Amino acid sequence: MEDGILKHYVGIDVGGTNVKFGMFSSEGELEKKWAIKTDSGDEGRRMWRQISDSVRKNVSANRLAGIGIGIPGPVLENGFVEVCVNLGLHNFNPVAILRENFPAVRVSAANDANMAALGEQWKGSGRGFKTLGMITLGTGVGGGIILDGKIVYGANGLSGEFGHIQFNPDETENCTCGGRGCINQIASATGIARYAKKMLRNDPGNSALRAVKNLNAKDVIDAAKRGDVLAESTLRFCMDYLAKGIAAISYVVDPEVFVIGGGVSNAGDYLIRMIQKCYDPYITLSKKKAKVIKASLGNDAGIFGAARLAMQEEEEDEGREH
Amino acid sequence: MEDGILKHYVGIDVGGTNVKFGMFSSEGELEKKWAIKTDSGDEGRRMWRQISDSVRKNVSANRLAGIGIGIPGPVLENGFVEVCVNLGLHNFNPVAILRENFPAVRVSAANDANMAALGEQWKGSGRGFKTLGMITLGTGVGGGIILDGKIVYGANGLSGEFGHIQFNPDETENCTCGGRGCINQIASATGIARYAKKMLRNDPGNSALRAVKNLNAKDVIDAAKRGDVLAESTLRFCMDYLAKGIAAISYVVDPEVFVIGGGVSNAGDYLIRMIQKCYDPYITLSKKKAKVIKASLGNDAGIFGAARLAMQEEEEDEGREH
Repeated sequence: MEDGILKHYVGIDVGGTNVKFGMFSSEGELEKKWAIKTDSGDEGRRMWRQISDSVRKNVSANRLAGIGIGIPGPVLENGFVEVCVNLGLHNFNPVAILRENFPAVRVSAANDANMAALGEQWKGSGRGFKTLGMITLGTGVGGGIILDGKIVYGANGLSGEFGHIQFNPDETENCTCGGRGCINQIASATGIARYAKKMLRNDPGNSALRAVKNLNAKDVIDAAKRGDVLAESTLRFCMDYLAKGIAAISYVVDPEVFVIGGGVSNAGDYLIRMIQKCYDPYITLSKKKAKVIKASLGNDAGIFGAARLAMQEEEEDEGREH
Repeated sequence: MEDGILKHYVGIDVGGTNVKFGMFSSEGELEKKWAIKTDSGDEGRRMWRQISDSVRKNVSANRLAGIGIGIPGPVLENGFVEVCVNLGLHNFNPVAILRENFPAVRVSAANDANMAALGEQWKGSGRGFKTLGMITLGTGVGGGIILDGKIVYGANGLSGEFGHIQFNPDETENCTCGGRGCINQIASATGIARYAKKMLRNDPGNSALRAVKNLNAKDVIDAAKRGDVLAESTLRFCMDYLAKGIAAISYVVDPEVFVIGGGVSNAGDYLIRMIQKCYDPYITLSKKKAKVIKASLGNDAGIFGAARLAMQEEEEDEGREH
C-alpha cells in the first residue's frame, strides 16, 4: 500500500445471530459500523461470501489494509477452528478463507471474547494497562487474557475459558461442557437465575422474587439492589465463585486489572464493588489487589479488538522487515 | 564487551540454606557450579557482599556478560522485592544492588520458581516447547508460567503462585498464607503427609502407614506404589486437587505442557501418570490435553533459568540497538 493513502482496518465479530463490522482509521477511530444476519448454512460457504461482499461494498479496496475476525469458539494462533458449536461449523480457517478473497490484505483471527479483551485494552476501560483479564458475564462466563498488549491464544484455544474452572464440588447438575461445578454454572446470567430459584425452594424467607414469573438474572440483581435479602445473598454466593476464578487468574498471570463485561455487567457499580469485595480476601500473598472495573465498549468491544489485532499483525510484519 | 572474547553468564539461585551459582557459556553449557552458605544477617548486606565476592572469585571480570538471580519470594519485573519471608528481608532490589557491584554487566532477577520454569524450558524437559506451566511440589506448591519463551512476571509478583488457589471449601485449617483450602495445603509434601494422617485417623482400614513414625510424603508415595489402598487413595485425593489447579492454568493461558518438579516429583512416572489421569477429565472443552511431564534439571533448574534470563535481557537490548 502506498504511503499517503489513508488506511482502513476492518474488525468483524461473528455471532450466532449477527455478523458485526467496524471500519477503523489507523488512529483507531471507528468510522463506520454495520451488521448483517448470520447465515451459516451450506457449511459456512454463504456466510463467507456474504462477509466478503459486505467488506467490499463498504470499504474501498485500495484503502483496506487489514481484517481481523472474532469467532465464537476456540481459535488457534494460525486461525484454525476445530469446532464452532454456535454456528455448527467444523475444521475451518477464517484467515485462509478471507486471504483467498482479499489476497493483498493482512487477515487475523481470534476467539470473540479474546477479541473483546483486546478491544477493551485498546480503546475501552482497560486503556493504559498493559496486562488485563477480561471476564464476560452473559449467558455463559467467558473472557480473555491480554499480556503486554497482546492476546494470549494458548496451545489448544482454551485460553480465557475461565468459565470452565470447576470450583464447586457440591454441584449436582452438569455444565454445558459436560463438566460439573464450573463457574459458568454459577456466575453466568443463567447461573444467577438458577441459584435464585434454588434459594427460593430451599429458603423459607420472604422475597420479592417469589412473585416474579420466568425469573432472570436482572430480576435477581434489581431485587438485591433494593435490599431483598434472599436476592442479595444469592448474588453474593454467585459472585464469590466468580471471585475464586478471578483470584485463580491472579495466581497464574497476575494482571493489573480485571475488566467485567457482558450483559450482567450492566448491573454497574453495585455489582463491580461486590466482585471486588469477594475477590480481595482470596489474594493473601499481596497487599496490592488488582482492580475490578466495568467494561466500557459494550457490544462493540469485539470489532474494536478485531481491528486492533489486524493492526498489530501489520506492525509486527513491519518490525520484521526493518 | 569486545567480540571474540568468550562470554560468561552467571545464574544465581538464592535459597534459605545455600546460594547456588552456575557459570554458563553463551551456548548454554554449564561450565562451573558452586555454592555458599546463605547468611542474610545485617539486613542482607553480608549476603550481597558474599555473593558479589563469590562471582568475582570464580568468573573473570572481562568475560562476565550477565548475571541472573532467583529470589524465594515475589519479584517485580524491575527487580523490586517487597518481602522475602524465607530470608527475613524487606524492600530491596537485587538488580540495583548487583548493578552497583558490577556496573558493566547486565543483571536481571525473578522469583526462584519462575527461574526454574525458564531453566526447564531452556535446557530441561520443557525444551522444544514455547509455552509451559511448571509446578514445583516441595514443602509448598509453587511454579511459573513461560509464554513464548519468557517468564510471566505479573503486576504484583503473584504469577505462578498456583499453590494459593483455594479449591477446597471443606478445609478446616489455615494455609501459611492465611487463606484456607489452598492447593498448597493438600498437594505439597507437607499436605500429602497431613492428609495421610487424617485418613489414618478417619479410616479404619489396614495400612502399612500405621507402623510408620514421623510419616512423610515419601512414605505415602512408596506405600501407594506397593499397592497400599489407603496410601493410594490419599495420594489420588491430593493429586486430584493439584489437577484442578493445573486445569485452571489451562483455562487461563493454556500451555502446551506441564512440567512437574520439586522433591515430590522424584516419585517419577507413577506420580506423573496419576496427575495426568486426574487432569484430563477436567479439560472438557478440548480433546487435546496438555502433556504432564517430569522436570529433568533437579536443583539446577534455578541457575539454568537465571543464566538464561541474563542472556535474554542482552538479546533484547541488542534487538533494540539494531
